[in-house]
Amino acid sequence: MNGAETLVQTLLASGVRLCFANPGTSEMHFVAALDRHPDLRCILCLFEGGVSGAADGYFRMSGEVAATLLHLAPGFGNAFANLHNARKAQSGVLNIMGDHADYHLRFEAPLKGDTVGVAQAVSHWTRVTSEAGRVAGDAAQALQAARSKNGQIATLILPANMAWDAAVGHAVAPAPPALRRPTAKEISAAARALRQPGAILLVDGPVLWSDLGLLAKRLTKAAGARLMQPYFVSRFRRGAGVVRIERMAYRIEDNLALLRDAPALVLCGTPRPAGFFAYPGLPSTPDNPETRLIDLCSREMDIGWTLQALAAETGEADLGPEDFAPLDLPALPGGTLTLAKVGEAIGALMPENAVVVDEGVSSSYHLGPGVLRGRGHDVLTITGGSIGFGLPAAVGAAVACPDRKVVVLEGDGSGMYTLQSLWTMAREGLDVTVVILANRGYQILRDELAAVGVREVGRNISRMFDVVEPTLDWVALAKGHGVTGVRVSDMAGFNAAFAEAMAQHGPRLVEVAC
Amino acid sequence: MNGAETLVQTLLASGVRLCFANPGTSEMHFVAALDRHPDLRCILCLFEGGVSGAADGYFRMSGEVAATLLHLAPGFGNAFANLHNARKAQSGVLNIMGDHADYHLRFEAPLKGDTVGVAQAVSHWTRVTSEAGRVAGDAAQALQAARSKNGQIATLILPANMAWDAAVGHAVAPAPPALRRPTAKEISAAARALRQPGAILLVDGPVLWSDLGLLAKRLTKAAGARLMQPYFVSRFRRGAGVVRIERMAYRIEDNLALLRDAPALVLCGTPRPAGFFAYPGLPSTPDNPETRLIDLCSREMDIGWTLQALAAETGEADLGPEDFAPLDLPALPGGTLTLAKVGEAIGALMPENAVVVDEGVSSSYHLGPGVLRGRGHDVLTITGGSIGFGLPAAVGAAVACPDRKVVVLEGDGSGMYTLQSLWTMAREGLDVTVVILANRGYQILRDELAAVGVREVGRNISRMFDVVEPTLDWVALAKGHGVTGVRVSDMAGFNAAFAEAMAQHGPRLVEVAC
Repeated sequence: MNGAETLVQTLLASGVRLCFANPGTSEMHFVAALDRHPDLRCILCLFEGGVSGAADGYFRMSGEVAATLLHLAPGFGNAFANLHNARKAQSGVLNIMGDHADYHLRFEAPLKGDTVGVAQAVSHWTRVTSEAGRVAGDAAQALQAARSKNGQIATLILPANMAWDAAVGHAVAPAPPALRRPTAKEISAAARALRQPGAILLVDGPVLWSDLGLLAKRLTKAAGARLMQPYFVSRFRRGAGVVRIERMAYRIEDNLALLRDAPALVLCGTPRPAGFFAYPGLPSTPDNPETRLIDLCSREMDIGWTLQALAAETGEADLGPEDFAPLDLPALPGGTLTLAKVGEAIGALMPENAVVVDEGVSSSYHLGPGVLRGRGHDVLTITGGSIGFGLPAAVGAAVACPDRKVVVLEGDGSGMYTLQSLWTMAREGLDVTVVILANRGYQILRDELAAVGVREVGRNISRMFDVVEPTLDWVALAKGHGVTGVRVSDMAGFNAAFAEAMAQHGPRLVEVAC
Repeated sequence: MNGAETLVQTLLASGVRLCFANPGTSEMHFVAALDRHPDLRCILCLFEGGVSGAADGYFRMSGEVAATLLHLAPGFGNAFANLHNARKAQSGVLNIMGDHADYHLRFEAPLKGDTVGVAQAVSHWTRVTSEAGRVAGDAAQALQAARSKNGQIATLILPANMAWDAAVGHAVAPAPPALRRPTAKEISAAARALRQPGAILLVDGPVLWSDLGLLAKRLTKAAGARLMQPYFVSRFRRGAGVVRIERMAYRIEDNLALLRDAPALVLCGTPRPAGFFAYPGLPSTPDNPETRLIDLCSREMDIGWTLQALAAETGEADLGPEDFAPLDLPALPGGTLTLAKVGEAIGALMPENAVVVDEGVSSSYHLGPGVLRGRGHDVLTITGGSIGFGLPAAVGAAVACPDRKVVVLEGDGSGMYTLQSLWTMAREGLDVTVVILANRGYQILRDELAAVGVREVGRNISRMFDVVEPTLDWVALAKGHGVTGVRVSDMAGFNAAFAEAMAQHGPRLVEVAC
């Protein structure tokens, strides 16, 4: 028995059932130990960004921490961007990164790198195991950290000799420490603030997809306050029958208008809103300087308890039909293809309880009004703004929810970052339909350039923003990864392709020339 | 005029002509400034790993530092792995990473991340510009750093308001400081050591592809010493007519045998050799404990001067035909396909002065003996061991050498990490032939697993090591990126496809089922 074996036994004894993996040569003993325990399911991703994004999507939909298996330093670097998105989503992820045997690190082996530095730049918790006998205990603590504070990024660095040296026994991850709670005085002050006309309760976390949303709605209705959510969140529920929560906007200008008249903004499970970027002449934050900001309950605190305590002060109003989105399915639109119509068709055809992974970036703005008229569904958004999130997150969501249809709204620019996830969808037979919104470029950059006042573009900009000459052929890319794809250019084609994708089980790709 | 404009003018005034780019929204003013200066050529890569790998390949073949344009924190994370390879290759790269406006960083915007942390984990030089008026000076110093010590990774972090705030003037990068040199005593000691029978001079850097190789050969011949090079190097010259330099091996066991009888090992431009990984029961370093190690000239020092000084002590012997590889072109093999035959066919068909980017990993071991019998060519290897190097480096090499044929020997597992580079090859019309060695998995991992004593594999290992169910279709993947591809399964097919690729100009892909 060696350190690697104690690690796998610790993971299993602590309830970890899944490992998204892209192993390298420094993790061989860990790999061998995993092989002795097929009850810990290993899912291969052909690039580490697929690994970390899948672990993120899996946590968002299951609430469970998955392990990742990553190669030392540069392998972790490849996972970095989607760990950033996971961190911003408050997802719990347990990274196991291999490293050289500790005595080998004083030599200049090719793969020697700053494992600790790159890990710490995105992890809440990082540790290098220093003895084989400590692997189990360190793994248990890493897992506890990943499950703490509503979800964190924990990275355990495992030098190869810690994996291969003799060790015995396993550990069980302790329960995470209790979440912090606001004081009674803070609750009372927030409840009073919410009773002012126009006050806003801004919520995030499980409030947006669990029964806590009903509670938040009842208490804000009783207080006469508005109930809102940020634009980018880990997961929110939407569509017919879902309790109404106002969604903030992407653009700072729109959020300035949304928040203008609020006497108080009470934060519960979310930090102070900030602009996606700063722009010359615009403020960094959309709240009115006259608005009283009340930072009641941070993302890391006990959000459910806080809402219960608030409700005890405000009371709870009964909810009526006006508090829920009605069933208002769009008609299937025909004719020439527009993004708005594609959104309506998705809304019309998507089954109850789908999971929508939204990385449509600029296109999602146009799709949204149609999609949200669909049957009740969950939406995962790109919380950290780092593109390449959508396809990997869909892998994780589909693994977490094998009985639900996953629909990815994917930009062509964004999709290219982590297209290797298509293969994992095929390998695992995941029920994911990928809609590629092929506008042949980085539309968001065209928009942002206009936002900073540039009206005319020359060669360098068009060469950097336009993905043409050649255009990408997403049907071929899908085929290359073992996924069936189809390209559509009118609504009849889209409706037929999307309906067929909804009617079958397994991965499909629809390229929308838009 | 703003900070971004002074940056572009500084780059141009300092001789930078090329920017590999994957811009994001925090770099809009830099992008706008680049657009005003089309003489700074911007080349788009659809993923940041393509950007950094291309800058590496470009430096290796041109000796010139290119700029990269990277998005803040996670965008740099995507570039990390190939910056690691570049660092290990001693390549000079100037990264320009955007960031939020500095005053925006106190808020929790989605893309806020540890830009400094992730940059420092792989850069030799990192700085955050703190005033628009300092952009030009900081950029000049960053460029100087990238050009110093034979090539370094320099990262300039540019908060958005440094780019958009008013600034005037530009700067010119100072010449890098003089390289350090060994003392006369050290030279004499090394020269004496080399005169011992069986002593070895281990060289790297430009010795492996420039006329310094002739000098090293003449001086070691005069001293009666062996001349060797590491296995993984930035660039080396090989094939017919090239001066003979023994190449070390990949496996530590083979290197132990190679170095066993050396009384002295003199290092010039390279650190002490170390095993790619440590293995239980094997030493970390292949040099015999009886061998005297002489660390004469590190990678960062003046390698050319050191060889001249050594030669002044040892004398220089005349070189004869036996000191050069003969023209020994393989015959074109027919019949069933083997990797050894594919290597021979490449050796037979590859034109004079090709650039071979070798990321064939386990397959390259079998290809090598055939390829090295080809006409004189340069080889770029994966110095940092982080796969996903080959296709991006080929982009950079082809941009640096538009008149030379670039051939990539690429594993299917490795190629998948950064396949987006195929698109840049098509976009820029680069003369690159990609040979995909499709063994349907991570063969190196199968080999390494056997090396640690595992003989039987179960479900988890086969699911992590074998890229099957489905197999990848590289011809479709190439088509998706706008590159013509063909799949071959016998030697007649390979010979025809490779010969056709050699005869035309522009990107081609040949998938070899092996």
